[in-house]
Amino acid sequence: IYCVFIAFCHSQKQHTSLVVMINCICVAEIDIVQRSREEPKAIREPNPGLKPTLAIIQAGEDDGLLKVNKKMAGKIGLNVMQICLPHQCREEEVIEEILRLNEDSRVHGIFLHLPQSFLSKSVRNAIKPQKDVDGLNIQHFLFCNSPLDAPLVGKMAVLLGLEGPLKATLQFLLQNNGMMVQTHQWSSKHLQKQIMDSDVVVFLETGHKGLPPTWLRPGVAVINLSSALMEEQPDSWEHRDEAESSAGVGPLSAALRMQHVVRSSRRWIQEQQYQPWRLRPLKLQSLSPVPSDIEISRAQTPKPISQLAQEIGVLPEELEAYGNTKAKVHLSLLNRLQHQPNGKYVVVAGITPTPLGEGKSTVTIGLFQALSAHLKLNSFACLRQPSQCPTFGVKGGAAGGGYAQVIPMEEFNLHLTGDIHAITAANNLLVAAIDARILHEATQSDRALYSRLVPSVNGVRCFSPIQMHLGINKSDPSGFTPEEVRAFFRLDLDPEKVTWQRVVDTNDRFLRKITVGQANTEKSHAHQTQFDIAVASEIMAILALTDGLADMRARLGLMVVGSSRNGQSITADDLGVTGALAVLMKDAIKPTLMQTLEGRPLPLFVHAGPFANIAHGNSSVLADKLALKLVGEEGYVVTEAGFGADIGMEKFFNIKCRTSGLRSDVVVLVATVRALKMHGGGPNVTAGVPLPKEYINEISSQLVADGCSNLKKQIQIAHLFGVPVVVALNVFKTDTQAEIDMVCRTAEASGASAAVQCHHWSRGGQGSVELAHAVKKVASQKNHFQFLYNLQDSIVEKIRTIARKVYGADDIELSPEAQDKIDHYNQQVRRAVHYPPVSLSHMPEKKGVPTGFILPIRDIRASIGAGFIYPLVGTMSTMPGLPTRPCFYDIDLDPVTEEIKGLF
Amino acid sequence: IYCVFIAFCHSQKQHTSLVVMINCICVAEIDIVQRSREEPKAIREPNPGLKPTLAIIQAGEDDGLLKVNKKMAGKIGLNVMQICLPHQCREEEVIEEILRLNEDSRVHGIFLHLPQSFLSKSVRNAIKPQKDVDGLNIQHFLFCNSPLDAPLVGKMAVLLGLEGPLKATLQFLLQNNGMMVQTHQWSSKHLQKQIMDSDVVVFLETGHKGLPPTWLRPGVAVINLSSALMEEQPDSWEHRDEAESSAGVGPLSAALRMQHVVRSSRRWIQEQQYQPWRLRPLKLQSLSPVPSDIEISRAQTPKPISQLAQEIGVLPEELEAYGNTKAKVHLSLLNRLQHQPNGKYVVVAGITPTPLGEGKSTVTIGLFQALSAHLKLNSFACLRQPSQCPTFGVKGGAAGGGYAQVIPMEEFNLHLTGDIHAITAANNLLVAAIDARILHEATQSDRALYSRLVPSVNGVRCFSPIQMHLGINKSDPSGFTPEEVRAFFRLDLDPEKVTWQRVVDTNDRFLRKITVGQANTEKSHAHQTQFDIAVASEIMAILALTDGLADMRARLGLMVVGSSRNGQSITADDLGVTGALAVLMKDAIKPTLMQTLEGRPLPLFVHAGPFANIAHGNSSVLADKLALKLVGEEGYVVTEAGFGADIGMEKFFNIKCRTSGLRSDVVVLVATVRALKMHGGGPNVTAGVPLPKEYINEISSQLVADGCSNLKKQIQIAHLFGVPVVVALNVFKTDTQAEIDMVCRTAEASGASAAVQCHHWSRGGQGSVELAHAVKKVASQKNHFQFLYNLQDSIVEKIRTIARKVYGADDIELSPEAQDKIDHYNQQVRRAVHYPPVSLSHMPEKKGVPTGFILPIRDIRASIGAGFIYPLVGTMSTMPGLPTRPCFYDIDLDPVTEEIKGLF
Repeated sequence: IYCVFIAFCHSQKQHTSLVVMINCICVAEIDIVQRSREEPKAIREPNPGLKPTLAIIQAGEDDGLLKVNKKMAGKIGLNVMQICLPHQCREEEVIEEILRLNEDSRVHGIFLHLPQSFLSKSVRNAIKPQKDVDGLNIQHFLFCNSPLDAPLVGKMAVLLGLEGPLKATLQFLLQNNGMMVQTHQWSSKHLQKQIMDSDVVVFLETGHKGLPPTWLRPGVAVINLSSALMEEQPDSWEHRDEAESSAGVGPLSAALRMQHVVRSSRRWIQEQQYQPWRLRPLKLQSLSPVPSDIEISRAQTPKPISQLAQEIGVLPEELEAYGNTKAKVHLSLLNRLQHQPNGKYVVVAGITPTPLGEGKSTVTIGLFQALSAHLKLNSFACLRQPSQCPTFGVKGGAAGGGYAQVIPMEEFNLHLTGDIHAITAANNLLVAAIDARILHEATQSDRALYSRLVPSVNGVRCFSPIQMHLGINKSDPSGFTPEEVRAFFRLDLDPEKVTWQRVVDTNDRFLRKITVGQANTEKSHAHQTQFDIAVASEIMAILALTDGLADMRARLGLMVVGSSRNGQSITADDLGVTGALAVLMKDAIKPTLMQTLEGRPLPLFVHAGPFANIAHGNSSVLADKLALKLVGEEGYVVTEAGFGADIGMEKFFNIKCRTSGLRSDVVVLVATVRALKMHGGGPNVTAGVPLPKEYINEISSQLVADGCSNLKKQIQIAHLFGVPVVVALNVFKTDTQAEIDMVCRTAEASGASAAVQCHHWSRGGQGSVELAHAVKKVASQKNHFQFLYNLQDSIVEKIRTIARKVYGADDIELSPEAQDKIDHYNQQVRRAVHYPPVSLSHMPEKKGVPTGFILPIRDIRASIGAGFIYPLVGTMSTMPGLPTRPCFYDIDLDPVTEEIKGLF
Repeated sequence: IYCVFIAFCHSQKQHTSLVVMINCICVAEIDIVQRSREEPKAIREPNPGLKPTLAIIQAGEDDGLLKVNKKMAGKIGLNVMQICLPHQCREEEVIEEILRLNEDSRVHGIFLHLPQSFLSKSVRNAIKPQKDVDGLNIQHFLFCNSPLDAPLVGKMAVLLGLEGPLKATLQFLLQNNGMMVQTHQWSSKHLQKQIMDSDVVVFLETGHKGLPPTWLRPGVAVINLSSALMEEQPDSWEHRDEAESSAGVGPLSAALRMQHVVRSSRRWIQEQQYQPWRLRPLKLQSLSPVPSDIEISRAQTPKPISQLAQEIGVLPEELEAYGNTKAKVHLSLLNRLQHQPNGKYVVVAGITPTPLGEGKSTVTIGLFQALSAHLKLNSFACLRQPSQCPTFGVKGGAAGGGYAQVIPMEEFNLHLTGDIHAITAANNLLVAAIDARILHEATQSDRALYSRLVPSVNGVRCFSPIQMHLGINKSDPSGFTPEEVRAFFRLDLDPEKVTWQRVVDTNDRFLRKITVGQANTEKSHAHQTQFDIAVASEIMAILALTDGLADMRARLGLMVVGSSRNGQSITADDLGVTGALAVLMKDAIKPTLMQTLEGRPLPLFVHAGPFANIAHGNSSVLADKLALKLVGEEGYVVTEAGFGADIGMEKFFNIKCRTSGLRSDVVVLVATVRALKMHGGGPNVTAGVPLPKEYINEISSQLVADGCSNLKKQIQIAHLFGVPVVVALNVFKTDTQAEIDMVCRTAEASGASAAVQCHHWSRGGQGSVELAHAVKKVASQKNHFQFLYNLQDSIVEKIRTIARKVYGADDIELSPEAQDKIDHYNQQVRRAVHYPPVSLSHMPEKKGVPTGFILPIRDIRASIGAGFIYPLVGTMSTMPGLPTRPCFYDIDLDPVTEEIKGLF
């Protein structure tokens, strides 16, 4: 037998809000206890971490009523958390505790066991309706009628008792909720029949003793209007607990509270689980001719990022807004959605890049827009954060282009949420620590060094926790022998063998080779070094590959900064700086959520962008993982691999997928007719000079045909990994139909599962619908993923495998330096990742499909923290320069409208 | 005669919400038009920028009804903004437009003139109730009953017509609003009398023709329930406009809409204006002994920053959250509150600093906490953003300490909202542009340089807007003579005379003197240079002194980076990089809002922190201006000046106040007994070594007495500016009562208006209540502010004035280099600030009150963009170093709890 209290609590006269509360409770205490006892079990089984919990805020010690409640919680199997405030506490303190409990996801119900004087309206309204076990909050009514509770629509209700405004109001409300309502007096004729036919019976009289139990059919809800709650004055709240207690309803109220906690837990779990997105995307109105990128971007007002987050199922507590258009997403989401199956995983790669550009980023965004806005599939794009260098240098930004853009592009291309700044700060703190340490060691005796590194505090020396990483197994520093002091506290870094460089996120060519430490204060420790571009920092590679805070901290500690004079590798841990680096990177680890132009909002992550030449050139594992959970089983995540398929995609599979454990379902390979012409032997192009006619008019189909060899090779490389390929031909208006057909035919003949044209630049997602359909079809097929080499292979074998199978070399040739390094890494790397994958990058200047050459390996480097070895082929610049007329000549800010001009 | 429509619109059956709308309208169209016409005038008079505006969203062309509305708007004097959507537009597009108009502060009402099919519940609910001219939104009811409208409490209402749930519900609602309600039938006996006695008459019948006009006394409200709106089906909305039109109520409805717009404008203005804060601060529970700073900080959960912003009257659209504990505040607030009188302006300065520390930051925060949480005055603190260097180096963070802290301290001390990172990026982009330009000029002919700097686009050369700053007065670049090309496009920077340095926010001592450009690609242009700490960048000084985007952009352009071989100053404008710098700084210009430990939340700004040695060492003008408006006339803003009063306060007055136009009402001068002992001749102290006994036990009151000379001198300096002084003695537990008394006595004898003890460190604001009372008393007195020198004085005179009056020197002595520079600045500075103030910093190592010496001026530098000249005295390091055991040894991150350890 169920009973529903409906209580209309008129608020104080001067206030206007309508206070309505409905609480479904069970009259039969035993029944409710029984049912509630089973529910927590049912909840906990698939959610072993969850323990439904009631928080009690009380003033002073436990009293009798509290004991009844705690006992009931125990019966049902709930946790109880007690917050004991002093008898004299202030309203603010109560509210403070309530707000804290509101946000505490471990708490599912809040019971205010406080004297009446505390229960002001502010206090009552502070409770989140979801956690309001006693219906104190005025929003409770609306909340309780959420779709999660039993629907009222179509149910028959009988209102029983005195006529009056309350009865009529109630009738109005219930009818408004879709119920059929009949009103009766106790004296009504067919009362018994009416009651037996109804689903809900409402008593409007106070002091009523109840109906004959036989009148109520099983399952009927009995609604009892408590007269105490109908009073208009706040006095109604007075002595509530006492009244409960003396009337013997204490156990019943307690049971109801517990039931609320159980329901709230269940609701919480439902909320936590994946739900289909309720995106409200806007249609794209594309113009022809296509305006400039910044004009297109500026013409669209981004949606508030919190709205986007809500629409895709990110909880408010998982979101940290950075302004209104960017937000970081907490990694705790991974834990919450751990049982959610991943969506499909699509990687976009390209043919070997040419100076003409292939439009990989725009294909990525266009495909994603097509999947989301046109195929109506939950989808996410994951992009790399660009360095600021190209934005102010030559190339411009990396937010896509035309109608396939990330907005607002200025946020995307500039500071974003500060991740690259954090990497720069961490990287350069480490280098400062290295140089300072070398100087301090050179100028201090072992003992002096020791007494500074293990300072005496109030006469006692003790290690800092970070020093315990050094392998020290004594807890008392005073017992150290001089040998031990030397072994643990003198790193003896060889200044010649420091491999850690400073970084800066600016095109500063004059920092390519520098001499530092020339001031007198550095006592003749000047030495030559260099600055790299910030994204070349190993810390960026770590950010892209890590799977969480603990892993990131461990990887940061493992980073090798050089070696000691006796050949030991020296790490960030040895310098005691790991904790500081982790602190500097604590926010950077959270991916940044933004939106695309089309749809406003369609969601994408921007996270990490390691330099493709010396690292793996792919966006972060964490962003992909979060996105795969958010889109759900039927959804799609489109991620982009840097450079051509031979470099970016190879590293995506061999390094990123190996690290993350994720496997992609399909490779999208981007090509353009003009780039293929160049691979087929077309002339070189120069920035600022008009394109040679070969690229504009169809001079010779032979150039395209020859260039297709590169496309064919890239398809074959993808097949080495067992992943099917869809070729996306990014069409330019100068391409002819014959050229387009030739490329698509060749692609399919070379084993591509499909080859389709894309027009996303001029038409947005609509221009990539065909591609989206092809991707969807291919992704649903089973594939047979395999790595190109095993981790257990030797370093030389790994390099040789990539050089032969991917680059088409006959063999590799190791310089003596490279051979030395391999020996070193094989034997010496202290606490190293034993079998790291290899990040090899050859010279992308070679066009077509080079074969029959020996790949010279000049040197070998290791990113031990990130977890890979990277051989160097030829020389490569890790610091771009500014041209005579950099992009910044066109960039400006309108001080009145705050609009930015000249970005592209 | 007034009439009130009350319309209960039942929503669709399956929905639960109660839809209630009340619109007060005037039956007599003429009357409403007349009244509404007068209101806009009344509104506009004190708000000349405001123009009440109605936005109309329509599908297709204007129709008759729309014309009626537009005509009515014209009659009343309102603006009309029309958004014409296509006939076939989608719900999302309508909502998109509504949301945009909701946020558009120029729009005060939104009229949806759309076919029924568009007016879905989502569309209706999208409208902000404040702008909902037709009462479409369900929240409208609550909103319309806001205190801004006439109160209903105590009014008598008569409900007239058929019985039924609606009547009863209405009765319930009106009673709930505090009205007395009587229900009647048309046949009721004393109907006429009842109606004549009532304030409101409600008709519940459809098709009713009205009462005899004689029954209605003047001023009575007639409530007419429109039957069309009572239908439950969405059909009720059908033909609304047509109905309006055909029934001839079009003009009346239009008049009502316009009235709503007028009211909404008035309400908007009221909201914009200053209101007393509704802060809900929490009491501080201080522990004894005082725990560590990070423990205290971590024990407190900060309030959501958006809540704080709301409580102090920052509008949602003026706030950009950065996570949950930091937010940037838009400068548009200054404009909105321009008519709001400023609060009192308190500057905290200190005695000449000693290695013992005086606790200026903690006094600032403690005083602010006392004013806010204890004296209950609207108050704000404005602090400098600290460099990350001390956090990881020796000194630790700068968030205050003990129970006078900013929380969360890790956010305050680390990246904050990225302002210093932005400064670093801008500063280093400029230096990269300088070096690259020198290289490119050295390797290119005039013609080649020109053709790259003015590239041909589609065969036409034209200048970028930024190049027009160069003083070019030809619009066609092709007509340039070789001489002109040379003059405008070859800057001819002298590599020896480049004064702009790279910066980094890391203690990297090895960058104090370096050689850059040693790679082959830089073609023998290697040269020696240095890195400074990021806060030493002139861009930081500009950020601290600017008053808005336009001013900042202009100042950035004026920054001198060096001079040409023929002695011309070369600026950022000359390099074409000003726009890019402004773009990089566009977010940094907004001050960051945080909160203090006590109160949670009490508001403070963190903004800018220029290096005190070479710049003015004070937080930003903008933060102070925003805070002074926010606190209002009776409120207090406490800001801190860097270093001792002789440096920080002098620059605060002569540079910051001169630039901002603000005048401070009182100087709080911080002293400690132990620091005074050191000024009195006490022994030096060394970090890590126990304090000499002089500082712990009262050995000799002579040390204190002698040291008070420094305090006396600082008081005198403040009096030079005509500002009264309150001495805040920051008490340590080792101080004796005799020492404390001596300091307070001496201070008052030396002219301080008051001298009080502070215990904020151990007791929070409670420990500074006495100080707060003293400050309040002194601030209310009139003062006679004056500058120490006039801008028209020569540079030498300015320097001499400061040296003599403030530092106690007999005279200054200029090195030949300094003399040369003065001549240079007097004659050569191109587009310079003509009479800049001087930022002079002497050697703070001197204890007590040094006199009788000649201050040697080694060199003179200029921050032309920031707008001051800074003479150099002796050598000063602009790059700190890391000690053997830096702070970072204790810093770590718990990967599970995400808690940070070891910061202080």
